[in-house]
Amino acid sequence: MPLPRAPVVVEASAPSSIANLGCLFDLAAMAVNHARDLVRVRVRRGEGLTVKSLDPSVPGGERNTAHGAALAVLRKAGLSASDVRVEIEVAKGVEPGVGLGSSGATAAAAAYALNEALGSPLSTAELVEAAGEGEAVAAGTPHYDNVAASLLGGVAVVVSRSPLRVVRLEPPEGLLVVLAVPRGAVEVPGERKTEFFRGVLPSHVTLSEAVEQCSAAAEFLVGLMLGDLEALGRAVSRGGVVEASRGRLIRGYWEVKRRALESGALGVNIAGAGPSVFALAREGEARAVAEAVREAFAEAGVEAEVRVLRPEPVGARVERKVQ
Amino acid sequence: MPLPRAPVVVEASAPSSIANLGCLFDLAAMAVNHARDLVRVRVRRGEGLTVKSLDPSVPGGERNTAHGAALAVLRKAGLSASDVRVEIEVAKGVEPGVGLGSSGATAAAAAYALNEALGSPLSTAELVEAAGEGEAVAAGTPHYDNVAASLLGGVAVVVSRSPLRVVRLEPPEGLLVVLAVPRGAVEVPGERKTEFFRGVLPSHVTLSEAVEQCSAAAEFLVGLMLGDLEALGRAVSRGGVVEASRGRLIRGYWEVKRRALESGALGVNIAGAGPSVFALAREGEARAVAEAVREAFAEAGVEAEVRVLRPEPVGARVERKVQ
Repeated sequence: MPLPRAPVVVEASAPSSIANLGCLFDLAAMAVNHARDLVRVRVRRGEGLTVKSLDPSVPGGERNTAHGAALAVLRKAGLSASDVRVEIEVAKGVEPGVGLGSSGATAAAAAYALNEALGSPLSTAELVEAAGEGEAVAAGTPHYDNVAASLLGGVAVVVSRSPLRVVRLEPPEGLLVVLAVPRGAVEVPGERKTEFFRGVLPSHVTLSEAVEQCSAAAEFLVGLMLGDLEALGRAVSRGGVVEASRGRLIRGYWEVKRRALESGALGVNIAGAGPSVFALAREGEARAVAEAVREAFAEAGVEAEVRVLRPEPVGARVERKVQ
Repeated sequence: MPLPRAPVVVEASAPSSIANLGCLFDLAAMAVNHARDLVRVRVRRGEGLTVKSLDPSVPGGERNTAHGAALAVLRKAGLSASDVRVEIEVAKGVEPGVGLGSSGATAAAAAYALNEALGSPLSTAELVEAAGEGEAVAAGTPHYDNVAASLLGGVAVVVSRSPLRVVRLEPPEGLLVVLAVPRGAVEVPGERKTEFFRGVLPSHVTLSEAVEQCSAAAEFLVGLMLGDLEALGRAVSRGGVVEASRGRLIRGYWEVKRRALESGALGVNIAGAGPSVFALAREGEARAVAEAVREAFAEAGVEAEVRVLRPEPVGARVERKVQ
């Protein structure tokens, strides 16, 4: 493919997201309006890929998900880091390590910005795939739920992993997301948090558990597509073996869930790999749910920062382009 | 509840159906226009439940699924067989033992007719539950996919098994179903066919296989609800461990599937517990698919009766009522 003659600078942003959504482990995520990562990509003649992190708590270079995402975009465009000089700067907006798909937002914004700088050679599915490869830097294995939601906005569902097929669905009207970020609710090595939370999952489930999970997935999609918030919430609460394995690592989790549902939440589960917890709620109920979640965590001896968020319809987008 | 003062006679019919639909094992079925079972229920003062089969190849009495379904309807209505005299006659339209939900159609029609004769005390979910209990007479365990499709028509999806919640979705326009009933493709004890085909399933699957099945379920629902026939077909072809276990018992199955897809089928899988095989096809392609399936079975030394069916939108209905 033809390379840009003059240097091109593209800044793109991508929103935070909540992965798994309870019943769709590794398969779905919802973009939320908590924050956006901003990635600046400069492409010019030369060679080499550099990634600089403007946030001292987030590593630059190969350990940043933007690096893996950029390499994958180059490869899918028929290029490599020896064909072109790519300089990336990452400005974090999404707090890392709390279950809001922070590393996925970076990977999504980086893939999107670089693709744009190269003249958009990749399809949406290829972009998701490239961002997923970047995300593997943080999560250990490539998975596509967070990056798909950060790229597409709304609710992204991975309807096939190999070959990758992703569908974007509109979040329903009037839905709020209560997110609780517990501090010190769980002892995990911060940097490898996602790997740790994957490590506690069983390798096998019973056939009946698998059928149960499929029925929850079906209820989720029916609820989402028919705008039936009750059904959507019920489905989100059905986390099966994944929730069972991870829930016991988060101090106070089951009591938090019970109290949130009692206070009007439509559904409650673990956000992404945890330890954050999210609840879906109707507009009128979100405040009460937030209060119930904060109280229940406090009674378990855990301080939790609780926010009321909205589904974010806008995925990755160009913020500025100079060429 | 008040019992009818004078004898009431209700005749109800319910259509054949194809269960599992490949990716939604035990969770979904599609009613098809192959045939309908007709069940005549007479309720009067007295006591005792009798079930008479008008088809000599189908047992009457307690071994007929109408019996279990009727007992469950009575119980859910707060009655028992000692409170009222119920006489049931079953006229088969749906051929038994070929994967078209024959026993489920009887159970559905019986539950529907008796509920009507009692003044409709049961909700739809309760009716599905009652018919599912009847179906357990034939299948060994209660499951709800066939009976839900026979009761509701269209595509029925069990979005929760306990408590039971069932959703009816409209089959998409222009979709045909090619059904192949192989004769002698598999050696199974005819009467316990469903139990036999359940017995070959693994008790456990890997977590990754479970995720794969959930993604197929998601693709099915997205395809069905957006009217994306390609997605629907792809999802139907993804039968996972259930198809892998059962497919090898049906002589020629994998070659039949390959040839059907080559000839234009949208998706192919095993109908219900098998050994029948079904393909989804667009109107223009169904003939070619039917021919390919017949040929592929013939080359495997199996004579298969092949029919082109349509989704049946009308579930159980009253055909005649006298009181």
